[in-house]
Amino acid sequence: MGMKSANQSSQERQTNMHLGKDKDAKGTWVTYRPEIKIHDCTVRDGGLINDHKFDDGFVKAVYDACVAAGVDYMEVGYKADKKIFAPSDFGAWKFCDEDAMRRVIGEKAPSIKLSAMADAERTDYHNDILPREKSVLDCIRVATYIHQIPTAIDMIKDAHDKGYETTINLMAVSTVRDAEIVDALETIAQSPVGTVYLVDSFGALYSEQVRYLTLTYLRAIEGTGKQVGIHAHNNQMLAYANTIEALIVGANRLDATINGMGRGAGNCPLELLIGFLKNPKFHLRPVLECIQNVFLPLNQKMEWGYSIPYMITGWLNEHPRAAIKTRAGSKKDDYVAFYDQMVEEE
Amino acid sequence: MGMKSANQSSQERQTNMHLGKDKDAKGTWVTYRPEIKIHDCTVRDGGLINDHKFDDGFVKAVYDACVAAGVDYMEVGYKADKKIFAPSDFGAWKFCDEDAMRRVIGEKAPSIKLSAMADAERTDYHNDILPREKSVLDCIRVATYIHQIPTAIDMIKDAHDKGYETTINLMAVSTVRDAEIVDALETIAQSPVGTVYLVDSFGALYSEQVRYLTLTYLRAIEGTGKQVGIHAHNNQMLAYANTIEALIVGANRLDATINGMGRGAGNCPLELLIGFLKNPKFHLRPVLECIQNVFLPLNQKMEWGYSIPYMITGWLNEHPRAAIKTRAGSKKDDYVAFYDQMVEEE
Repeated sequence: MGMKSANQSSQERQTNMHLGKDKDAKGTWVTYRPEIKIHDCTVRDGGLINDHKFDDGFVKAVYDACVAAGVDYMEVGYKADKKIFAPSDFGAWKFCDEDAMRRVIGEKAPSIKLSAMADAERTDYHNDILPREKSVLDCIRVATYIHQIPTAIDMIKDAHDKGYETTINLMAVSTVRDAEIVDALETIAQSPVGTVYLVDSFGALYSEQVRYLTLTYLRAIEGTGKQVGIHAHNNQMLAYANTIEALIVGANRLDATINGMGRGAGNCPLELLIGFLKNPKFHLRPVLECIQNVFLPLNQKMEWGYSIPYMITGWLNEHPRAAIKTRAGSKKDDYVAFYDQMVEEE
Repeated sequence: MGMKSANQSSQERQTNMHLGKDKDAKGTWVTYRPEIKIHDCTVRDGGLINDHKFDDGFVKAVYDACVAAGVDYMEVGYKADKKIFAPSDFGAWKFCDEDAMRRVIGEKAPSIKLSAMADAERTDYHNDILPREKSVLDCIRVATYIHQIPTAIDMIKDAHDKGYETTINLMAVSTVRDAEIVDALETIAQSPVGTVYLVDSFGALYSEQVRYLTLTYLRAIEGTGKQVGIHAHNNQMLAYANTIEALIVGANRLDATINGMGRGAGNCPLELLIGFLKNPKFHLRPVLECIQNVFLPLNQKMEWGYSIPYMITGWLNEHPRAAIKTRAGSKKDDYVAFYDQMVEEE
């Protein structure tokens, strides 16, 4: 019957309780890993909702909250090529010109670093990314699909040579074959990049897959001094859960956004992540204050966060564009029609 | 440098990709475990929001959706003691009298079983729980705090003797010492109960803890033929994530609610859970239809789901009652004041 004797020693009981201790876990429940860094991407990922048309006051509020919360990096937007994207169609945070950033940030706090994202094949990186000493930016994050890796590596080298910290954010890996991921990681491991990000662009990954991929990424960069990061989307309400799954097994760079704001279903909420992290440098209250004063009013005008159409595209491992289109239309809550359409297209 | 040779064989690469395979996982990504059962508790847990004052049409809509979705069990409410809870203060689903259930359900579909929850010390179980052959119910779920275990075990025996399937739902384990949990599980393992539930009443548990506790519960009932279940709350947006964490390592009874409706931050959303489960008996579309037609209009009148005050009580491992009170008042979005109040009370 497998029942336990009432005379079982307390040491045996202790052993029974520790069966679940996770062999892959780096660290314990009570300590923290000081090498874990938070990368806020509220303004950058949130800008995908409104073509980056945030006013200066909003960006400053996010910056102030990040500094007060102890956030390590804040991403202010993209370095998009103005020959591809007309500046008249977008807000300032699509381009992150130095004067725009300096106007808002002023004298940068010593505790925080700033980053911009540079999309492979959409960035005039040789010209638009200045030498680091001439920029308020500290870090360039190169976003790439699997077929753009050679371009991305060249961008990484360019940014590295200009003095920046760098990350490579390999997008949409939920649709990439294992062998190609391994190939990409081998190439990345030989580049000067500082951090390689596991990016769940479609919000399609489950915790098992996040664990498996994070460990695969860690194995690939073992001994190089590089870090692994995680950027999750909330289509299946797993952005936060997947972020802590990745960090438990060793990811040290964690993307998050205030109130989970970001394209479609949004991202890992910064406030939840700070609640989980035990490093006393992180503070929850300034983030809550910013949500209450800035994000609640904004949410009346702009939609983000989990809803059924995003769940469906995440579940189907597809780009959220169809869900975004539905949520912007008059039939935003016709879940059954959206389900039927998506399943039929499969 | 730890870099991989470009000549590495494809078999070696395959090995690299499988590092993340979870040693504790029962089953694989592609197959499914037919022994996994879904227990819908929409009407029961949702009834905690409105004192169980659902009209018959709502309960029938949930029942119809559950049957169409392939849900195994539906919980219709509580068997509360009318000497403790005045029937004039509550809706019918606080008591689940036979005539109320039969009026709504009609001829019960053969594919679904019905349950009611019986709270320890709040149920006149000897009188109010009829012999199974006289009831439309199939299963009695006994909810108990750790100090009520002897009463709960007596209730389990009573229900078992009356012919019911039984579960014991040990609540608020996030506040119980390990040694007491082990003691409780030893007692439970010797009872006639069919399933023991890991219940995260406060929405306080993280995936590591869910894994650890689920494995501890499984170890305790090993060889008895009993099952382990999981009932999660969404305070930290982890209800679904924690439910799949538990199922991956072996929990076979999974509680969920349509649209995540339930007290406070709500529960594991049934639609997400069905999306994850691969057993072809489960169907997503009827759940989406029910959400669209029934839950969206209801949500205009009744609040449930994740919000910052629930996050704070979950994070502090406290009962959500303070958050519920705040959300019902005029300062429902004063997150900072609520945070200050809760942290000060700690």
